[in-house]
Amino acid sequence: MSRKYASALLDNAVNALASLPGVGYKTALRLALYMLRREAAYTEGFVDALLALRLKVRYCPVCHNICEGERCGICSDTHRDGSTVCVVENIKEVMAIENTGQFHGLYHVLGGIISPIDGIGPGDLEIDSLVQRVADGDIKEVILALSTTMEGDTTGFFIYRKLAEYAVEVTAIARGISIGDEIEYADEITLGRSILNRTAFADGKMNQY
Amino acid sequence: MSRKYASALLDNAVNALASLPGVGYKTALRLALYMLRREAAYTEGFVDALLALRLKVRYCPVCHNICEGERCGICSDTHRDGSTVCVVENIKEVMAIENTGQFHGLYHVLGGIISPIDGIGPGDLEIDSLVQRVADGDIKEVILALSTTMEGDTTGFFIYRKLAEYAVEVTAIARGISIGDEIEYADEITLGRSILNRTAFADGKMNQY
Repeated sequence: MSRKYASALLDNAVNALASLPGVGYKTALRLALYMLRREAAYTEGFVDALLALRLKVRYCPVCHNICEGERCGICSDTHRDGSTVCVVENIKEVMAIENTGQFHGLYHVLGGIISPIDGIGPGDLEIDSLVQRVADGDIKEVILALSTTMEGDTTGFFIYRKLAEYAVEVTAIARGISIGDEIEYADEITLGRSILNRTAFADGKMNQY
Repeated sequence: MSRKYASALLDNAVNALASLPGVGYKTALRLALYMLRREAAYTEGFVDALLALRLKVRYCPVCHNICEGERCGICSDTHRDGSTVCVVENIKEVMAIENTGQFHGLYHVLGGIISPIDGIGPGDLEIDSLVQRVADGDIKEVILALSTTMEGDTTGFFIYRKLAEYAVEVTAIARGISIGDEIEYADEITLGRSILNRTAFADGKMNQY
């Protein structure tokens, strides 16, 4: 669907902006008029940044994170612990975990999650390349940082079985009550798991935040 | 302020998107990753539409609406009533009034509103060109469709005085209770005005919507 405005140029710009996820026609029109009010250099810089991202971006051949050079900044950082690999669904999770400052190993971006309903099987994901990384040695621990959904659990279990024959420890990030959450309102599965996986009170972890 | 992500390309794209009004970093990142997932032609079409808007857009020399050719589509439409001119702040209001389908005259876009606090005086707006249009004859009625703010009222009064010496009727759009509003919750100024400017019950206008 598209809408008609005062000029075909404006129509096209508004329709382009409204094609973005979560952007409606009112917002698109507001953004288009904002660009009209700003100097031409603003729009030129704006489109250059988007074009550069789309056309020049590359994917790290090791972990499949986005990168510009041969390898991504994390894989090429010699200060990071190459014996620990954190498996995530997408680069968004890489950024989220990097922002915590709590992880100093490497990543492996699957590029999705096993979801038969969407037609995504293990072959569509970077699982074979993960197994190959483990087979090549060096990696001592694989941390699964996947969503706690049916798809996430399925993907985790699939990877776990694939890695069973290698001498590598497979762990999953802790599930439990979120910081700031009230126990009264926690669902029983989370609460049950948090009791089963309780930690020593004085081991320092709870004072990190 | 800008943020750091996995790659300088992504940083630049996210910061560009986040520079749009009402777009935060989370949304900007989501949009940037959406573009990465889509084919390159999508981003190319997207930026072409924005660049074309910004670089090729022109303003109608008569009414200052945006246009592509010599005059805007409304001014060059010979079926429209050239004796009635509706004065609005911006092209957004032109579109809003056009969408009602209730106005068949021409427009005059001021390009802003008198606002001493923002340093915008009458000289920064297209008021002289409006007076010139009236002085040239042909125009019988000038409709002021400005916001009911202090700035809108000031601008309206300024235009009213400027046009006082010409044989032109100056009107303002009706103020009153919005369709669907409950009288109980209307502010007293609006309610008071709506009583003063009451219309005959059966004159057909109330059945337009």
